[in-house]
Amino acid sequence: MIRVAVAGAAGYIGGELLRLLLGHPEVEVVGAVSSRFPGKRVDGVHPNLRSATDLTFCSADEVDECDAVFLTLPHRVAMTQIDHWKQRSKFVFDLTGDFRLDDAEVYRRYYGEEHQAPQLLDDFVPGLPELHRDRLRTADLVSVPGCMATAGVLALYPLVARDLIDPEQGAQFDARTGSSGSGAMAGPANLHAERSGSMRVFAPTGHRHEAEISRHLGLSAAMTATGVEAVRGVQTICHATLRPGVDKQTVRRAFREQYAEEPFVRVVAHQRGTFRYPDPKILLGSNYCDVGYAIDEDSGRLTTIAALDNLVKGGAGNALQCLNIRMGRPENLGLTFPGLHPL
Amino acid sequence: MIRVAVAGAAGYIGGELLRLLLGHPEVEVVGAVSSRFPGKRVDGVHPNLRSATDLTFCSADEVDECDAVFLTLPHRVAMTQIDHWKQRSKFVFDLTGDFRLDDAEVYRRYYGEEHQAPQLLDDFVPGLPELHRDRLRTADLVSVPGCMATAGVLALYPLVARDLIDPEQGAQFDARTGSSGSGAMAGPANLHAERSGSMRVFAPTGHRHEAEISRHLGLSAAMTATGVEAVRGVQTICHATLRPGVDKQTVRRAFREQYAEEPFVRVVAHQRGTFRYPDPKILLGSNYCDVGYAIDEDSGRLTTIAALDNLVKGGAGNALQCLNIRMGRPENLGLTFPGLHPL
Amino acid sequence: MIRVAVAGAAGYIGGELLRLLLGHPEVEVVGAVSSRFPGKRVDGVHPNLRSATDLTFCSADEVDECDAVFLTLPHRVAMTQIDHWKQRSKFVFDLTGDFRLDDAEVYRRYYGEEHQAPQLLDDFVPGLPELHRDRLRTADLVSVPGCMATAGVLALYPLVARDLIDPEQGAQFDARTGSSGSGAMAGPANLHAERSGSMRVFAPTGHRHEAEISRHLGLSAAMTATGVEAVRGVQTICHATLRPGVDKQTVRRAFREQYAEEPFVRVVAHQRGTFRYPDPKILLGSNYCDVGYAIDEDSGRLTTIAALDNLVKGGAGNALQCLNIRMGRPENLGLTFPGLHPL
Amino acid sequence: MIRVAVAGAAGYIGGELLRLLLGHPEVEVVGAVSSRFPGKRVDGVHPNLRSATDLTFCSADEVDECDAVFLTLPHRVAMTQIDHWKQRSKFVFDLTGDFRLDDAEVYRRYYGEEHQAPQLLDDFVPGLPELHRDRLRTADLVSVPGCMATAGVLALYPLVARDLIDPEQGAQFDARTGSSGSGAMAGPANLHAERSGSMRVFAPTGHRHEAEISRHLGLSAAMTATGVEAVRGVQTICHATLRPGVDKQTVRRAFREQYAEEPFVRVVAHQRGTFRYPDPKILLGSNYCDVGYAIDEDSGRLTTIAALDNLVKGGAGNALQCLNIRMGRPENLGLTFPGLHPL
Repeated sequence: MIRVAVAGAAGYIGGELLRLLLGHPEVEVVGAVSSRFPGKRVDGVHPNLRSATDLTFCSADEVDECDAVFLTLPHRVAMTQIDHWKQRSKFVFDLTGDFRLDDAEVYRRYYGEEHQAPQLLDDFVPGLPELHRDRLRTADLVSVPGCMATAGVLALYPLVARDLIDPEQGAQFDARTGSSGSGAMAGPANLHAERSGSMRVFAPTGHRHEAEISRHLGLSAAMTATGVEAVRGVQTICHATLRPGVDKQTVRRAFREQYAEEPFVRVVAHQRGTFRYPDPKILLGSNYCDVGYAIDEDSGRLTTIAALDNLVKGGAGNALQCLNIRMGRPENLGLTFPGLHPL
Repeated sequence: MIRVAVAGAAGYIGGELLRLLLGHPEVEVVGAVSSRFPGKRVDGVHPNLRSATDLTFCSADEVDECDAVFLTLPHRVAMTQIDHWKQRSKFVFDLTGDFRLDDAEVYRRYYGEEHQAPQLLDDFVPGLPELHRDRLRTADLVSVPGCMATAGVLALYPLVARDLIDPEQGAQFDARTGSSGSGAMAGPANLHAERSGSMRVFAPTGHRHEAEISRHLGLSAAMTATGVEAVRGVQTICHATLRPGVDKQTVRRAFREQYAEEPFVRVVAHQRGTFRYPDPKILLGSNYCDVGYAIDEDSGRLTTIAALDNLVKGGAGNALQCLNIRMGRPENLGLTFPGLHPL
Repeated sequence: MIRVAVAGAAGYIGGELLRLLLGHPEVEVVGAVSSRFPGKRVDGVHPNLRSATDLTFCSADEVDECDAVFLTLPHRVAMTQIDHWKQRSKFVFDLTGDFRLDDAEVYRRYYGEEHQAPQLLDDFVPGLPELHRDRLRTADLVSVPGCMATAGVLALYPLVARDLIDPEQGAQFDARTGSSGSGAMAGPANLHAERSGSMRVFAPTGHRHEAEISRHLGLSAAMTATGVEAVRGVQTICHATLRPGVDKQTVRRAFREQYAEEPFVRVVAHQRGTFRYPDPKILLGSNYCDVGYAIDEDSGRLTTIAALDNLVKGGAGNALQCLNIRMGRPENLGLTFPGLHPL
Repeated sequence: MIRVAVAGAAGYIGGELLRLLLGHPEVEVVGAVSSRFPGKRVDGVHPNLRSATDLTFCSADEVDECDAVFLTLPHRVAMTQIDHWKQRSKFVFDLTGDFRLDDAEVYRRYYGEEHQAPQLLDDFVPGLPELHRDRLRTADLVSVPGCMATAGVLALYPLVARDLIDPEQGAQFDARTGSSGSGAMAGPANLHAERSGSMRVFAPTGHRHEAEISRHLGLSAAMTATGVEAVRGVQTICHATLRPGVDKQTVRRAFREQYAEEPFVRVVAHQRGTFRYPDPKILLGSNYCDVGYAIDEDSGRLTTIAALDNLVKGGAGNALQCLNIRMGRPENLGLTFPGLHPL
């Protein structure tokens, strides 16, 4: 059994990690760390786990040595606890923003302060199996990307990797997200009566995930982030320009080739039906990231679309996929839930 | 492997059956029957199954002999096809309303017409494991109850079984349901713009599930059914009167005893926390029926609450639980998904 | 012009009062009192008023003498401030729970503490125009009922007033409410991710509005209150038993007669159509309370249904209707918004 | 009184027109034309109008001469009925797509067929008061723009008009819309269970409103349209590039100057608060279009945001504003509803 701890286990991504880990046939959860609820039952905070576990939350010091720890802490806390966890766990999977960028200067620009452990930035492998699977097989430190970044990157990467995009025009991303992305501690702006039914542009420019997209795609990304009526789910729309002469077939082939063997990326671009393009509605609870595209052939303008569950492929599920890779297990172990429809 | 077919596989309960059956380790799906979509891919109708299956829909005649068939047909169609299916399948699990009542006269009152196969009414065992587990072990014909009936019955049965309720006062049920209960063929009243955000009393009196509740509890039930803003989920509130002298402890003990060993019924009646009473929000996709209660000790008035996912414990999941029982398999095989939170 | 102040103007009912008062052709708002936001712009808290007013919040002491004050304070605060407001305002319209019951003992039972001004309980006239219009014409102190109480009372009153209900059986109310009923200060349970899509039984028994219903109807009411997915809107279902021999025509006539002249109560009980019974969906923003009924003639069981916007007819609008009555104005002045569909 | 008819009065925009016209102090509704429901009560289709009118639907031939007719017909029907209506009505306000483009070739590209009355295209004045107020004062034929076009145009026009945008980079629009935009006749894709909670990209490229935006702004627009969870409401996000040297102050001044006198456009770009940028949530039922902007000063990338109620400023309300202008009435007559919060 793989011995695993979760630090920040009372949050929404923490709860999703526990759900997935408790259902994983080769994992034993040895610690659910919460500084807010030590000693309390896990299912008091995560009511969907009521008959799945009798675990109680513990403090960071109570965690014995383990094989892997997942950090779902507030931003800036992970970088201060990283030494603690490196000592206790063979592998660290960080789901915070602390080690997602490899450039301390870019970090300062997007996070508004100095990084506290810049010497570690290069040690973290991005937890993006679709781009870094080989490195993940041997990585001891993994930084799982932001939910909107994973969606945005996966929806454009096949074209960037084949140099089919005009980098001069950059790429404009429009990201929509459900309220769970704000976490379980959110304040008055996330009161149901205030948030329900809103289309809230919370980051018209400068969202932190924008920096991750630029990093992974190697082009200038501009992203707008909007909270829409949903609890779970992220969708990104990307506008970009194809290089002259790139036609629909080439684009189609790029997507098909890139993701033919991927267990959790599906290309969804249908001519008919209700769910023609990626839609998080059918992905909730699953580890899929669906990607699709459309082309305006007159103008050479390209639109790509991605959708995922921000708590699963955008967080906990993606991290577990990385663990499976690191431990040499089948990549989809414990991750086979297909999603519900209708929901 | 258990060879299973689904008739009515393009509907919402049909889709949920396919999802569960495809994930069941000892089941092989040998037929997904749809009269509307013969030859079409199953995942064209149920987009959450896109990478789970390559099945196509077939006609009823194309189904070979099998161990079990699930009927999720329109009401009145099951009773005309029942001979067809009895010949092809060892066991029939009917999820329609056709065989839920054991009295042709009550059927006529609630369904507004004559029953076409009254001689079979007594042959069907109610698909309620919590009340009829032993009979289900040997039943060849099983009639799975309506979603609101299952909720309503489970929330009052422990007290009725112990004669703690005053039958003179009857029991008043208030049922709320999501829009998936109307099925995938619904008309203009279920257009999103019309249905969204509504609290629509579609059956102030005389709902068919009321008759099932009365049958199973042996008392006079009055039920009001309301569609609320949700796709999945049923919740029933029941008002009843305790017999004089029955106190809170007795009620508590009745619920605990009744459901101590049940794999899919949980008693939820907490003093604090956000999810103190049964709420479908945390049950979607799972096979749980949560039940709870509260007592106004001054008046002896009792309130019981039940919640479930109408497509799972209220339909497909409950039917699969019955199949597991009939086949001597662990009751929770293929039914361990715990639900998502937040969702 | 009628000079009006609002105390508690930063809350949701306070905001709705301001919206209605600012649109009222014969009202001048002379004070919007908020202890939390003194000096801040009103439209900073109520963004829908952005171009409707330049008002800023003030403290209670800054309000000059006025004709009427509306109190939308936390429970227990109104009773401590009542002397202050009686000195400054000719008329006081209290929208809190403090003066809704006329019996200090019942108050203690439902509110869990002693009333601080029991000598005033009899001085308040219930702000229910449909029951107390004549008294409201001369009332100096008005207590506007709770939102679920108004709905519950109006849906059964025509029958109670004509002695058509069997009082032995009591009346069982099931109330559903949107999240705005919890106010703008609600805590973690009302976080969007926790509250969205829930069916949360927050008061299975003993809700305070139950006591108001019992008071106004003179019979034993048992109410369960559930939060459903909505921001605005209340719906109550009532189960009761008709006296022997009371038929559908008699019930129909009772409702028609009772409300024939009422400007804001409509009888909605149709045989066909999508909106056959009262549904808050089409009432949001309006001052209507729709009421309807259905009868199971076999059993004599009656179901009544009521719907309203909890912030309008369930609060601010109803209070303004009372003001119009008190000031001798047309009852619907400033209250003619018909509601939106679809919404 | 202004005598007004509505053709297509049973649709959602038709219903909204009736709501507004019935509440307009100087309008008399002389005909509510519906080919589907002739002779039926208007409030049977628009339940929010239950106590507002006793009107019944009539046929097109039953409409007497009138001052103005509003056409909310299916696309392509308006152009075949235009002669009929020009003969009966002094002024025609067309809310369909038929006369929104002034170039028959562009029409063919976006609508997929030949225009049937190309000779009239130049006769229609765009119903955009903010761009064409003077022409609207004397226009006999007015074509009210699409909902997403109005939002998109108003959010970028102040900068385009001052030549602050780099036209080489075009403008990328991302539009989100509620389900009412699909109309009251929509099919299975708009079933509540299918549409609820979805983020459905129904037009990744080539949406018809894109052509309108390009026309009015005189630059190359690329638009993606997505249905999100809402019944009403449109929001557009626009990505564009400022000309070198254009700074935040210049942008700010452009917006303030452009809309300082506009009764229904508000600039919303705040540093703090919950509703910092335009959000349809607070605009439902109102005629406002809120516009806002943000600038990434490092890159010169600009994001503009617009929000409106698609049935009001995106349709019926905007048309009524045009009528007020044409008739020399105050522009906001009958259009003063401020919106609700929370909702």
